Amino acid sequence: MKTESWRDHPLWLKELPDLPPAGLITPYDTALFEAEANIRRHKNRERIRVLPVSEEMPEDAYYLESRGQETIVRGGFRGVLYGVYAALQDQILQQPVQEGLHKPGFSLRMLECWDNMDGSVERGYAGRSIWFDQDAFCYEPDRIRQLGRLLASTGINILCINNVNVHAPAQQLIGSLTKGAADFAEILRPFGVRLMLSVDFSMPMQEGLPTADPLDPETALWWKKTAERIYSVIPDFAGFLVKADSEHRPGPEAFGRTHAQGANMLADALAPYGGYVIWRAFVYNCMQDWRDTETDRPCAAYGLYHPLDGSFSDRVILQIKYGPFDFQVREPVSPLLLDMMHTETAVELQLAQEYTGQQIDLFAMPPLWREIFDQIGPDRIQRMHAVAAVSNLGRDSNWTGHPFAALNLYAFGRYAWDPDSDPAEVITRWIELTYLPEKDDAAKLLRLLLMSRQVYEKYTAPLGLCWMVNPGDHYGPNPLGYEFAAWGTYNRAGRDAVGIDRTAKGTNLTGQYPSPIQEIYDDPQTCPDQLLLFFHRLPYTFRMKDGRTLIQRIYDDHFEGYEEVLQMQKMLEELPLPETDREEARIRMERQRINAREWRDVINTFFFRLSGIQDAKGRKIYE
Amino acid sequence: MKTESWRDHPLWLKELPDLPPAGLITPYDTALFEAEANIRRHKNRERIRVLPVSEEMPEDAYYLESRGQETIVRGGFRGVLYGVYAALQDQILQQPVQEGLHKPGFSLRMLECWDNMDGSVERGYAGRSIWFDQDAFCYEPDRIRQLGRLLASTGINILCINNVNVHAPAQQLIGSLTKGAADFAEILRPFGVRLMLSVDFSMPMQEGLPTADPLDPETALWWKKTAERIYSVIPDFAGFLVKADSEHRPGPEAFGRTHAQGANMLADALAPYGGYVIWRAFVYNCMQDWRDTETDRPCAAYGLYHPLDGSFSDRVILQIKYGPFDFQVREPVSPLLLDMMHTETAVELQLAQEYTGQQIDLFAMPPLWREIFDQIGPDRIQRMHAVAAVSNLGRDSNWTGHPFAALNLYAFGRYAWDPDSDPAEVITRWIELTYLPEKDDAAKLLRLLLMSRQVYEKYTAPLGLCWMVNPGDHYGPNPLGYEFAAWGTYNRAGRDAVGIDRTAKGTNLTGQYPSPIQEIYDDPQTCPDQLLLFFHRLPYTFRMKDGRTLIQRIYDDHFEGYEEVLQMQKMLEELPLPETDREEARIRMERQRINAREWRDVINTFFFRLSGIQDAKGRKIYE
Repeated sequence: MKTESWRDHPLWLKELPDLPPAGLITPYDTALFEAEANIRRHKNRERIRVLPVSEEMPEDAYYLESRGQETIVRGGFRGVLYGVYAALQDQILQQPVQEGLHKPGFSLRMLECWDNMDGSVERGYAGRSIWFDQDAFCYEPDRIRQLGRLLASTGINILCINNVNVHAPAQQLIGSLTKGAADFAEILRPFGVRLMLSVDFSMPMQEGLPTADPLDPETALWWKKTAERIYSVIPDFAGFLVKADSEHRPGPEAFGRTHAQGANMLADALAPYGGYVIWRAFVYNCMQDWRDTETDRPCAAYGLYHPLDGSFSDRVILQIKYGPFDFQVREPVSPLLLDMMHTETAVELQLAQEYTGQQIDLFAMPPLWREIFDQIGPDRIQRMHAVAAVSNLGRDSNWTGHPFAALNLYAFGRYAWDPDSDPAEVITRWIELTYLPEKDDAAKLLRLLLMSRQVYEKYTAPLGLCWMVNPGDHYGPNPLGYEFAAWGTYNRAGRDAVGIDRTAKGTNLTGQYPSPIQEIYDDPQTCPDQLLLFFHRLPYTFRMKDGRTLIQRIYDDHFEGYEEVLQMQKMLEELPLPETDREEARIRMERQRINAREWRDVINTFFFRLSGIQDAKGRKIYE
Repeated sequence: MKTESWRDHPLWLKELPDLPPAGLITPYDTALFEAEANIRRHKNRERIRVLPVSEEMPEDAYYLESRGQETIVRGGFRGVLYGVYAALQDQILQQPVQEGLHKPGFSLRMLECWDNMDGSVERGYAGRSIWFDQDAFCYEPDRIRQLGRLLASTGINILCINNVNVHAPAQQLIGSLTKGAADFAEILRPFGVRLMLSVDFSMPMQEGLPTADPLDPETALWWKKTAERIYSVIPDFAGFLVKADSEHRPGPEAFGRTHAQGANMLADALAPYGGYVIWRAFVYNCMQDWRDTETDRPCAAYGLYHPLDGSFSDRVILQIKYGPFDFQVREPVSPLLLDMMHTETAVELQLAQEYTGQQIDLFAMPPLWREIFDQIGPDRIQRMHAVAAVSNLGRDSNWTGHPFAALNLYAFGRYAWDPDSDPAEVITRWIELTYLPEKDDAAKLLRLLLMSRQVYEKYTAPLGLCWMVNPGDHYGPNPLGYEFAAWGTYNRAGRDAVGIDRTAKGTNLTGQYPSPIQEIYDDPQTCPDQLLLFFHRLPYTFRMKDGRTLIQRIYDDHFEGYEEVLQMQKMLEELPLPETDREEARIRMERQRINAREWRDVINTFFFRLSGIQDAKGRKIYE
């Protein structure tokens, strides 16, 4: 794979090989180019005619109409381009054009990259940064154009290019390095992708001010001037992404101010130009003493932010990870997402498979997202304007390391456009665009992808029993890896019972949920099995709804998870994929098998040593 | 401490402030300089007169005689210098000169540094390398001279300057970088310290040969020529230190040859020049599957090397870590050290406190070494010619991080000179030379140092229950950190019992020991308490000789260990040390206290969760 280039991996743009040239300015220019390139290449295809940008339509919306031998695309500023990609993709799949008005479920569809300027990517599993190296911008403009196309073709309209943990010299992206950022933004602009930057809340002090107190007029002025300077060279700059007072990052609390005061000050600086402050709600005590059983990390964000509901400016969007912990395989939806009625919120997903297999193990995310959006509920979703995902991209020639991990990038765009999407439909469309397979093969790959999350969950974290991973790298089993650490992530497994009581009788995480969810979670008899150990401390002999004991269920899931990986391996073998993808997927699947075996044996042994209870089916558990 | 220099920390040479100048050639030159500098400085002191080097005396031996107002030093090549330092130190301490003949217990007294050429030090806890940085030599010549003096004044005569894990470009120390090594050796030469280098067994292949097979004539020739080239610029070069077929380092096994064949080939190359091959016996399967209970790492070295006894050249010295594992707080002595009757062997100690507190926690090593040498026994010790220790040095201004860690460097020299030394005497002499304290204070510091190892053992690894450390950095508790790893270091703690049966009924490590040690270790009733869990798997309810249960003893040791650290903290407060040392020692002692608390609570909780047995004394164990 080393000698391959990204040009060999067009992903779902396989049938659109013509890269738009440099010099295009607006999404409309790109729309015209894509439509014309298509005609040049396929003389007999139905012509796609792009009407001039409609001032009346929302920026992202488009309207498709099939008229005789033509598909007519009308759309707003970016909508024209989205319309062309939609029409092209329908053509490629030989499906009738989806006529009518299309508009996105979320206005801000943000891909957030944790790229450091030294070229490393925090939680990156697809190689180094595509655009940073050696503390500077470093990229092939063509590759950025192709990235712009990939994002536009699935509907993503904001790209944050630097890590939320802002390591030097990335602070200077809003300082001395803004010119580089502006050049980069210019490449993405014709694809309707706006640039966003992660900022360091203490930056004014690094620049010589005595304080970064958000209520200090000098500080506010510093940010206003900074915003003015940024917008003078990046007029469509999307805004700031901020990780503040979290995991040792500076924030307003250092100055005795609330997060609302901190965020609003930044929003005031950006508001004149239409920019947003994306304020991450991932805040908890990361210096917890494991002996302290009162503090419970998943309760933290709600405790901090709910009292602030209503005090944030409407240019502030509180970006909330989907679960109350941190991107685990399965979590209940964050209670904050259900109960910030007077605050703009965004849900934060993670394409980077930090806890979900690191782009080695297969993990197709749409089923997870379906659950999350369903739990948030259509009413609240409708009132949300933004959605974000942490990127899974890197410099690997195939962009995402595992060839199938590209699905998650594509699917994120589709869910950001339509949170009502059906997982099977989205996955199928990605399969078809990527591989143009025979119908049977598409169905096989769909089956493989649809089962992947559940299988991964079985061998790593059944019953909501998360965090048994190796600390640091977060791959592979380590049942006590986080048990005596400061991160607030404990299982407190003993010889008779396991888990933390988060009900009203315990740390009362359940109390942060509205009725009747609260009551459902509170009672182990009604709590969904998959979250049983997320909310409850239970004896190993606890009877599950299906009659099995808890310990037996733990054993079963780990044994079955491994067996199902073997089955997935077989399914993969049968798929006629392009050679490179096939090889890469096979190699990774074998690593997944070894990983699943390790998980099975380590976790089963761990619980057997504690409980002394044998597997009812007499399978091998090492002592 | 940052603004201080090594010049502010003369360690035990406090009273000898005059650094010998550049340009001295032999130890005799240095001896004259030191004797004269002393007279210049202290006109009324007894004169030390150095006679010309005696051809009849062994190189390292010296003879002291007090005659009127003079102390007369006669000695061999290095002995003259050792004699002067001995006489000077006696003077400083206002003790009568120790008249008569003095000669070392071991001829080769080697300090081995795990310095990498990028400037890092593997397992270094005193800052970066003193002589390497950015892949090149980088040092203050004066500092190397002072190092030479420190080594000579305690009797160390060989310095290996590069890591046994030979990372690029350190291979070239015997290639293109030999000139730099020769310059370095020249600085050390007047102090009687010979240079040694760690080599990479596969180096001929890196230089273009098709093989590094030790029986291949071309390979042998390559090494011969290399030796010739080295000796042409470093005529007193001490030889090669080799880590082969160990932890992924290349070795003769890759070519189907034995370690003897590999080592002998190298020895043949060095023999004409009087060089040695120091061949490390630290070889085991570091890719073990934790499920495999047949393989037992501490049995490995004996299994590999004992059959080779008698087949090594007499220029090969098999360097054996003191215990069968790896520098743990307490291990039985390695059975190899007791049973290689026809092989030159050296015992390998570790001053770097990898598993013994990392120069944060206090750990004075002489009591440990006393035990080791006693276990090896005076007869065998007498037949050994070499002893080695992994260095605890670094670029910190005080050389060893913790000011008291310098004791271990000094004491290693003393034990290498006289393995019969008494720990209290050696420690006292170091205290007196370093701090020139009042008698009472010396006694207090002695008490503190003498108790340090036992205290550390109590809170980290009582009963020989080692390896419960954090993997990777080896500091702090992690009871399952190595449990499912490939390193062969398991405790197999279950709900009823803990430990691995290494008796005749188990992996039969005891079978590698001679009678009656074998029988003593084999029976838990006669096995020393401190090694009980090293050799036995025992139920928590096992009755110890003193009537306590095993689990109670585990709890007690951890509770007591912490209490004793508090006591040590108090003792330290009472000592009138120089300000910098006092501050540094205090800061580190507070870190030790926190570490001891963590060990106490994590390990007690771990065993309580497994066993369900309460502490008989009702102390707090967290659940």
